[in-house]
Amino acid sequence: MDLKALQDITYGLFIVSSRSGTKFNGQICNTVMQVTAEPARFIIAIHKNNLTHEYIVKSGIFSASILEDSAPMDFIGLFGFKSGREVDKFADVGFKEGITGCPMVTDHTISTVECSVINKTDVGTHTIFAGELVDANVVKTGNPLTYAIYHQVKKGFSPKNAPTFKIFDNSGQADVSGLKTPFEQHKCTVCGYIYNSGTGDPEHNYKPGTPFKKLAENWICPVC
Amino acid sequence: MDLKALQDITYGLFIVSSRSGTKFNGQICNTVMQVTAEPARFIIAIHKNNLTHEYIVKSGIFSASILEDSAPMDFIGLFGFKSGREVDKFADVGFKEGITGCPMVTDHTISTVECSVINKTDVGTHTIFAGELVDANVVKTGNPLTYAIYHQVKKGFSPKNAPTFKIFDNSGQADVSGLKTPFEQHKCTVCGYIYNSGTGDPEHNYKPGTPFKKLAENWICPVC
Repeated sequence: MDLKALQDITYGLFIVSSRSGTKFNGQICNTVMQVTAEPARFIIAIHKNNLTHEYIVKSGIFSASILEDSAPMDFIGLFGFKSGREVDKFADVGFKEGITGCPMVTDHTISTVECSVINKTDVGTHTIFAGELVDANVVKTGNPLTYAIYHQVKKGFSPKNAPTFKIFDNSGQADVSGLKTPFEQHKCTVCGYIYNSGTGDPEHNYKPGTPFKKLAENWICPVC
Repeated sequence: MDLKALQDITYGLFIVSSRSGTKFNGQICNTVMQVTAEPARFIIAIHKNNLTHEYIVKSGIFSASILEDSAPMDFIGLFGFKSGREVDKFADVGFKEGITGCPMVTDHTISTVECSVINKTDVGTHTIFAGELVDANVVKTGNPLTYAIYHQVKKGFSPKNAPTFKIFDNSGQADVSGLKTPFEQHKCTVCGYIYNSGTGDPEHNYKPGTPFKKLAENWICPVC
């Protein structure tokens, strides 16, 4: 068995959101797809430990925001590496409530879909929620962010509750084999992000070649 | 509701296969993904009318071949627009039998996965099969074919049993709005493929600009 085969599977990257009473939550998800055309139905796979899972079970509604390829890492990190049990992820991002009352993130989003749950299937660590399409909207023209871009270009890592976690960072250890040496590498102990001096942190204006010690004192991991 | 939003969702393109006794069948599928990491489990969505659906229900096994971006249209057409009830799709293609006995197409394939069904969920026209990963192999190095490449570069259409059929060719009518005029357009009445004289048929050595009447008498639709 060669698990590298699994890395060839194509995925998009989405924010799946739901609500519980007046509370909103959302999380990064790579497992969203349309499974029937007539009527249009979707499935998503969500980890049972995640707050979004709890909200979807309670409310029976979910949305998916299709992210743009230019979505920055700190925005992805807010929805991918933080828990809605600790922070209000919707406090400072653009969103709208849909027909069902479900929130949909609109920042760095090209399109949104909103679904009503029709059934759920237990597949172990995750639940598959199937939902009927209630509404769909284009937010702006752009290219979708794929999981491949996230990993290869943005050097992002899979959170531990992602379906593909084991592939990319087995046992919680980041795979640094693809990164160039002799540049310095500093790994964030929270999310696995690696600051590589050869790459720098262009989103925060640190050019490739910037040594770690030249970063501002208030510089923090751009994902966390 | 703006159904154009659904076109922003990212998919891969795969051949999903199964067997019934000594018979093999396979079909093009854009709905394959890993849904849990520990253990590794996959889901696929298959139309109930398709022969592959019948074989998966009988045998409890399925495989997915992850196609390479260079896979030619006639190869995709064999698995996407023909029925295993009429032709033996495995007669002239490279494949191997896996650990479970499930066939896996290896032509134009970069990786394969093989699964044993653990449950199935009715979502209307399609069934969601969840399967536990039994084996995975890399066939060769390459880039995966995505649904976006299939539609945008190869000008492919969705077969009528695809989950996304309604999006691309509503009511069976091909959407020709994106094609350039004043080149001639001839639509295949079987699969919806459009011969556009401005594009030609480069896979069969007809350059862009070749009029329809200049095609050889034995020229046939490259998809069918």
